[in-house]
Amino acid sequence: EIRSILVKEGIETTVSALVFPTEPEEKVRHAIGNIFPDAKLHLIQQKGYVDRLEGKAGLDRLHELLREQKILDTARGAMYKGMKDDEISFELNKQAAYMGELNFLDHDVALGGIYVTIRYKDPMLITDWLAPETREGKPLEEIEL
Amino acid sequence: EIRSILVKEGIETTVSALVFPTEPEEKVRHAIGNIFPDAKLHLIQQKGYVDRLEGKAGLDRLHELLREQKILDTARGAMYKGMKDDEISFELNKQAAYMGELNFLDHDVALGGIYVTIRYKDPMLITDWLAPETREGKPLEEIEL
Repeated sequence: EIRSILVKEGIETTVSALVFPTEPEEKVRHAIGNIFPDAKLHLIQQKGYVDRLEGKAGLDRLHELLREQKILDTARGAMYKGMKDDEISFELNKQAAYMGELNFLDHDVALGGIYVTIRYKDPMLITDWLAPETREGKPLEEIEL
Repeated sequence: EIRSILVKEGIETTVSALVFPTEPEEKVRHAIGNIFPDAKLHLIQQKGYVDRLEGKAGLDRLHELLREQKILDTARGAMYKGMKDDEISFELNKQAAYMGELNFLDHDVALGGIYVTIRYKDPMLITDWLAPETREGKPLEEIEL
């Protein structure tokens, strides 16, 4: 139990999303909150008229949703694609998140999603925990952090 | 005067914009209303969670804004590009419109733009009226419809 807290303490996850003029801030907060309920978000005013909400967050709800919505393979693929050194980055569909749904965006064509960056010395461990390999949709092995 | 009304009556302009879950409908109405204050918009529920606001509108405010914001050349270019048979179509930046600014879009953006379609038997006449050729930013000739 303590080991798990220590490991989880070591993970640094940052989430952020743009806030456009036609979007009230609380709606974007709601979208992020559906996936990262414990996110500590603050608004960053940027040049021009598009602001950004950003903050640290935990991954437990994401871990649950990935299983509830059965998209472990998509998630694993997106995490692999976004893995570099000790960082994993991927993008979630902000509008789907507002509706409580998890949907991974293709980083290159994505427009205005929820940007997630997970920093940890062993990114494979995080990937195996969040989105383990599956057979017929079932995780081969569920690991505890 | 009557001729002008007759011609203007003959022009059919349709404006539309997507309404995403993180956007309250009245904010998208506000964005469109800044450019097309007389637009008669109705909400079209679509499959999935993105709706669409659409309706007929006049072009007088657009005619004014093009001059106030000195973007006649950009407008003329966009209208040429979008001219086909008796139709002119182009896209305006929805977020800029919300802020009262005219900005022609030539690429995809988050949350989509404002789609404008003008139907008239003589599209060149409409183009010359809305966005005449200029020299040093001044219209060479302002025509009345």
